[in-house]
Amino acid sequence: MSAVVDAGLPYGFQEQGRRFVLNSPTAMPQASTFLWNRRMLLQLNCRGYATAQFMQPEPAKYAHAPTLEAKSFMQPEQPYYAHHPGRFCYVKDEDGGLLFSAPHAPVNRAPEVFAFSVGQGDVAWTVQCDGIEVELSVRLPLEDVAELWTVRVRNRSGRPRRISLYPYFPVGYLSWMNQSGRYRADLGGIVCDSVAPYQKVADYFRQREFKDRTVLLHERKPDAWEANQAGFEGEGGLNAPTAITACERLAGGDALYETPAAVLQYRVVLAAEGEETFRFVFAPVRDDAETAALRARYLSEEGFAAAAAAHASYLDEGRGCLRIETPDPWLDDFANHWLPRQVYYHGDCNRLTTDPQTRNYLQDHMGMAYLRPRMARAAFLHALSQQEPSGAMPDGILLIEGAELKYINQVPHTDHCVWLPVCLQAYLDETGDDALLETAVTDREGDTASVAERIDRAMDWLLQARDARGLSYIAQGDWCDPMNMVGWKGRGVSGWLSLASAHALRLWAAVCARSGRTAQAVRFEAGAEALNAAVNAHLWDGDWYGRGITDDGVAFGVRADSEGRIYLNPQSWAMLSGAADAPRRARMLVAVDAQLVSPYGVAMLDPPYTGMREDVGRLTQKFPGSAENGAVYNHAAAFYLHSLYKVGEGDRAWNVLRAMLSGPDPEDCVRRGQLPVFVPNYYRGAWRLHPRTAGRSSQLFNTGTAAWMYRCLVEELFGLRGDGQTLRIAPQLPSHWPRARAWRRFRDAEFEVEIERVAGRTETRVAVDGQWLEGDAFSGIEAGRRYRVRVELPSEAGPA
Amino acid sequence: MSAVVDAGLPYGFQEQGRRFVLNSPTAMPQASTFLWNRRMLLQLNCRGYATAQFMQPEPAKYAHAPTLEAKSFMQPEQPYYAHHPGRFCYVKDEDGGLLFSAPHAPVNRAPEVFAFSVGQGDVAWTVQCDGIEVELSVRLPLEDVAELWTVRVRNRSGRPRRISLYPYFPVGYLSWMNQSGRYRADLGGIVCDSVAPYQKVADYFRQREFKDRTVLLHERKPDAWEANQAGFEGEGGLNAPTAITACERLAGGDALYETPAAVLQYRVVLAAEGEETFRFVFAPVRDDAETAALRARYLSEEGFAAAAAAHASYLDEGRGCLRIETPDPWLDDFANHWLPRQVYYHGDCNRLTTDPQTRNYLQDHMGMAYLRPRMARAAFLHALSQQEPSGAMPDGILLIEGAELKYINQVPHTDHCVWLPVCLQAYLDETGDDALLETAVTDREGDTASVAERIDRAMDWLLQARDARGLSYIAQGDWCDPMNMVGWKGRGVSGWLSLASAHALRLWAAVCARSGRTAQAVRFEAGAEALNAAVNAHLWDGDWYGRGITDDGVAFGVRADSEGRIYLNPQSWAMLSGAADAPRRARMLVAVDAQLVSPYGVAMLDPPYTGMREDVGRLTQKFPGSAENGAVYNHAAAFYLHSLYKVGEGDRAWNVLRAMLSGPDPEDCVRRGQLPVFVPNYYRGAWRLHPRTAGRSSQLFNTGTAAWMYRCLVEELFGLRGDGQTLRIAPQLPSHWPRARAWRRFRDAEFEVEIERVAGRTETRVAVDGQWLEGDAFSGIEAGRRYRVRVELPSEAGPA
Repeated sequence: MSAVVDAGLPYGFQEQGRRFVLNSPTAMPQASTFLWNRRMLLQLNCRGYATAQFMQPEPAKYAHAPTLEAKSFMQPEQPYYAHHPGRFCYVKDEDGGLLFSAPHAPVNRAPEVFAFSVGQGDVAWTVQCDGIEVELSVRLPLEDVAELWTVRVRNRSGRPRRISLYPYFPVGYLSWMNQSGRYRADLGGIVCDSVAPYQKVADYFRQREFKDRTVLLHERKPDAWEANQAGFEGEGGLNAPTAITACERLAGGDALYETPAAVLQYRVVLAAEGEETFRFVFAPVRDDAETAALRARYLSEEGFAAAAAAHASYLDEGRGCLRIETPDPWLDDFANHWLPRQVYYHGDCNRLTTDPQTRNYLQDHMGMAYLRPRMARAAFLHALSQQEPSGAMPDGILLIEGAELKYINQVPHTDHCVWLPVCLQAYLDETGDDALLETAVTDREGDTASVAERIDRAMDWLLQARDARGLSYIAQGDWCDPMNMVGWKGRGVSGWLSLASAHALRLWAAVCARSGRTAQAVRFEAGAEALNAAVNAHLWDGDWYGRGITDDGVAFGVRADSEGRIYLNPQSWAMLSGAADAPRRARMLVAVDAQLVSPYGVAMLDPPYTGMREDVGRLTQKFPGSAENGAVYNHAAAFYLHSLYKVGEGDRAWNVLRAMLSGPDPEDCVRRGQLPVFVPNYYRGAWRLHPRTAGRSSQLFNTGTAAWMYRCLVEELFGLRGDGQTLRIAPQLPSHWPRARAWRRFRDAEFEVEIERVAGRTETRVAVDGQWLEGDAFSGIEAGRRYRVRVELPSEAGPA
Repeated sequence: MSAVVDAGLPYGFQEQGRRFVLNSPTAMPQASTFLWNRRMLLQLNCRGYATAQFMQPEPAKYAHAPTLEAKSFMQPEQPYYAHHPGRFCYVKDEDGGLLFSAPHAPVNRAPEVFAFSVGQGDVAWTVQCDGIEVELSVRLPLEDVAELWTVRVRNRSGRPRRISLYPYFPVGYLSWMNQSGRYRADLGGIVCDSVAPYQKVADYFRQREFKDRTVLLHERKPDAWEANQAGFEGEGGLNAPTAITACERLAGGDALYETPAAVLQYRVVLAAEGEETFRFVFAPVRDDAETAALRARYLSEEGFAAAAAAHASYLDEGRGCLRIETPDPWLDDFANHWLPRQVYYHGDCNRLTTDPQTRNYLQDHMGMAYLRPRMARAAFLHALSQQEPSGAMPDGILLIEGAELKYINQVPHTDHCVWLPVCLQAYLDETGDDALLETAVTDREGDTASVAERIDRAMDWLLQARDARGLSYIAQGDWCDPMNMVGWKGRGVSGWLSLASAHALRLWAAVCARSGRTAQAVRFEAGAEALNAAVNAHLWDGDWYGRGITDDGVAFGVRADSEGRIYLNPQSWAMLSGAADAPRRARMLVAVDAQLVSPYGVAMLDPPYTGMREDVGRLTQKFPGSAENGAVYNHAAAFYLHSLYKVGEGDRAWNVLRAMLSGPDPEDCVRRGQLPVFVPNYYRGAWRLHPRTAGRSSQLFNTGTAAWMYRCLVEELFGLRGDGQTLRIAPQLPSHWPRARAWRRFRDAEFEVEIERVAGRTETRVAVDGQWLEGDAFSGIEAGRRYRVRVELPSEAGPA
């Protein structure tokens, strides 16, 4: 498995799927990956551009654009340009004068060899121009906010060479109040100081411990340096900096309230095949003491190695509960290594925010139930401790003292309660930890109630937040943030939320019934039925369910609409809630296939809006095919996936699942610009309207998709789902797979599962350790044991 | 006067000082100027970079950086970089392939000829490379938000040439919600659409009429075009765009939720000396109808000419009340054309904000008293209509319905009342309009009171806002915004504000006395004396006045301080208020000369702070030499200038005045990077600490300096000041000037003034129309008359 794919575009998985290598800097210029620890995040682009954030306690940057940047949530599809922050190394031939930069930008010289090699805990590039090979790699330590960079240069030209290496780390516009940069011999590197601007006194006290200094520290003393961006570029600009092309040595300039930069120069003489290694730390720090401490801790071969080991064992703790081996090796690599990594990032770091949206927080920890269930448990309890007296859940969960609801969390949404039973269900299935339900939770008012009582209240809140028709109010949004004007006047309702509430109520009614709380079970089951009935009465549009009814009583997401005629979510959740009977399901699936399924996955709605619809809101102003407006929005696609499995549509589900991933087809991969190392929040849609850009990845790895996809893989595709004290074993392999294998950790036992289609079988049967089961449930699981499971599936004709 | 200065750096005034020409793109790379009309502002850099703002109703942009920019007040010393917004024209030789860009960026090719030619109402460049001359020029129309560009190309090479011209107008990152760009043949140009992002419903209604579209409209149809920034650049980047270097024609691409750009291509065949002209409109618009209307109104030779004429007559209305002719032609050009232009911009546009700081608004209209006194009058009345019931003035004056106090205007400052009598004094002197004082003003509470009564209340507010020592509280700032922690706990006091209050009270007492309100005159005069006495008791530090006393009772701006030891403002205002007697004045002047006077002007404080002083505030965190922290802050220098004249220190004043301007000395001009077309808000200071950057201009033309400088020129240097119904004639020419001439408009009469030093004279004497005056006051002025004034000054030895 160590060779890259040799057909088409040269890229592929290596090291048993734990690395991904791309061998072109131009084929997918937006392709990116990310590294993180609990304090920071580093998104890296194949050409060397980078976006780094750390928590102090709100997300902050230490390398900026050369202009005053807006403070904003993470921007998807963020454009790169020559001066975008990045990490680069220029190389100049001291004899011939040839100049290139690794990884690729800013010089953009066509390389002889290029590899962008993405590991689980590191990113590396190998770039060769004119016989000089540069290897760049970066890792993060576990506890500190710092980037650990290694630059290795090798002479592959077969003759002696004299070169200069110039690691160039743009630092950008730090602050209009105070910024500078200079070389500090005593600290061993370039030190860029600043003071975060403020105008109100209170902000001073909030900011005074900020890490306002950005440093580039070296292990080996450089021959020269430059700390002034303009001094570095001169008239030549970034593509041919005057300080490199016209000067033997960097001038040692400083930045005095000017844009700083961190550039070092090493003059290196290399024999044929000679090589040299350099190590650097790039980091935000508070002061000299912190700078010196970072240097002492990391700047040596041993320091780097210890950091790598610590980070690797951190990652190992999130490795997941499933390993698979299928006829689709790309899926195997993604599901075994990359998807759990992405789920782990979400659950352990909460997307590096201090106020995650409640629905995101709960779904991210739904994913965590399969990786580190104790953390998921703690998160559910934490969320419930912020339940409001009315039973409603707030728009965001505050994670630290002093955090505030920001951005979209200041806009009232009505769906947050739904996610409590939906996500808890996954946790209870996975752990069997019904004791959680009796755990007492004290809220901010000092009121104490059990988890079960709190969820009862949340369900009662959902039941009362309905109009006379029995449909759920949407206020300024439900799951879909920008549908902000359907119900802002207080009357509009959401078809999706009504169905999601019905689903949540039914899930919770079942939990109540299991724990002997019959009255609640009956009440919530009745509530679910009433919701389903109301939706069927008011929003069934003949072939599919409408999305909602506006403040003015106009149903939308219906046949009569020329834009936004059909939405995916109501169809998915009507299958989950039971609102759709079999004939309706069949009509809906035909409608989805005909209208929403695109070459790049299932769109969230269609046709995309091309102009403002004031009674729907800013969704309709979004660019057609961007984010929610007609995109292949993977979070919604994942709901659909889940619902298809729940109604036994395994083959349809497989097609949805596969379209959510970049795969071995070079054309598709290039179009998406997406390495198969994470599932992005969306692919561009509007494929009929804007075919040129449809399918392109947002490059944004923050998405509830990851948790749902993992859940579907574990519980549905491989059908290894907990249920009370049993393991249900009911795989739904696509019909063209003859066999597959899986390893599953469950309740501290291990299950080795072999699934095979057997000619002539008409019903699935399951054996554990050679014993055929009655039905699909295996009970009496003993912790520490290893079970061998064999599943025989009926043989069916399916797509090749 | 049409030749440029031929010594040293080739630059200078042309057309009788109404144009300034710079003949190098590299000597002063930050050099800039600005154009404006009442709705927009266009700052242009000599290399082609640009920052444009317009009001809708808050300041907005229509050409952006390629990244999400912060919304902020105008940033001084804003750095330029390759992708900074600008207006450029690439030129490619179709035969030889040579590429350059006019004005200079992004290719930065060294030109054969370069001229950055700054007019009062236009900016033009002439750039020649490889025998091809490109002339770019831009004007603004009077009523619309639009840039009117002319590109003229001439073949100076003496042989036929085939070239392509590519006007390139970067549009940048418009919106994360929606952005696009494409060529629209029906509208005749490139149209970049977007939707301003919003999340809260209320913002939708605020934003729905925004001009979210940016257009580049052409008169002549281009041969090709490109609307996609990345498609234009390719791998070549901005310095050698692939779409130009590798392709015969631009590909006609569009931007779909990608970064848009506006690039056109004209393939031109030019005989020797052949020339072609192209006209363009670059503008934000709302929709197709507005786009078409702009096109129809302007896109022709006649349209451009009519717009130029309209804008020229607008500028003419602000031409000022003084013309001078002195031994310093640079001062003449600046004072006759550029300074009144800057004063006019401030007064007529209020710095393009909807909530100017009260002190700025009043001082800007103090300047307007000399240009368009009726507008100044209206502004004073408008400001007073926002007086608070307590008599305090608010931190900002709201100019339109719906405006809000923003940024620094949310931080409480205590000095605003001071500016009422200070600025009104200038207006009353200039106009004799004492009737203003009896005008009734109704405030927002519905309370009606005369101007005089309102100013009484403001003075009483100042008198009560003092501590037990009789010194004025500073709260979170006085005139110096970032001195925000001296008094935030409610106890700290301001030495400067105490002196400024004393000065204001004395001025107002005199007005009261003149209008027969004796009781008030006595009360306010007594208040002034008490303030002066308190300052003398608590803040005289032996050789100068301290700046204030902190919440904790620590005097600062005093000898004991190692940083911020002496501040300029308290010294200036102690001279104005009369707190300083002659012996103290003498000591102060020596201290200022020794500690604050630098090679680049008078610093605001010294030594600059190099680290946080928590009991002073963010001033001490500002970069040393930037803005207020030790800079040559021209607004403070102008106060000093005014005070020097008031105590008869004409020669000292002259040195201060001259240092505030860039002049004919190339070395000084290059260091400052400042064209003498406006006075910037500051020059970098900290000249001992950071000699490399000291003297550099902020390039920011928003500054109260302009009004004060104009006032000093009119009333002091040329000594032509109104006083009741008379004109006081008392010039304070520097002693090395043998003579000077002036033309002065005053009370609708004209005065032609000839000033001469006469050997042997010991006292100044003044004749009007041949009649020698008793003293310096001329009364009985008749509107419409022209008077000839002769002033004979004593002959003194002075600096050469």
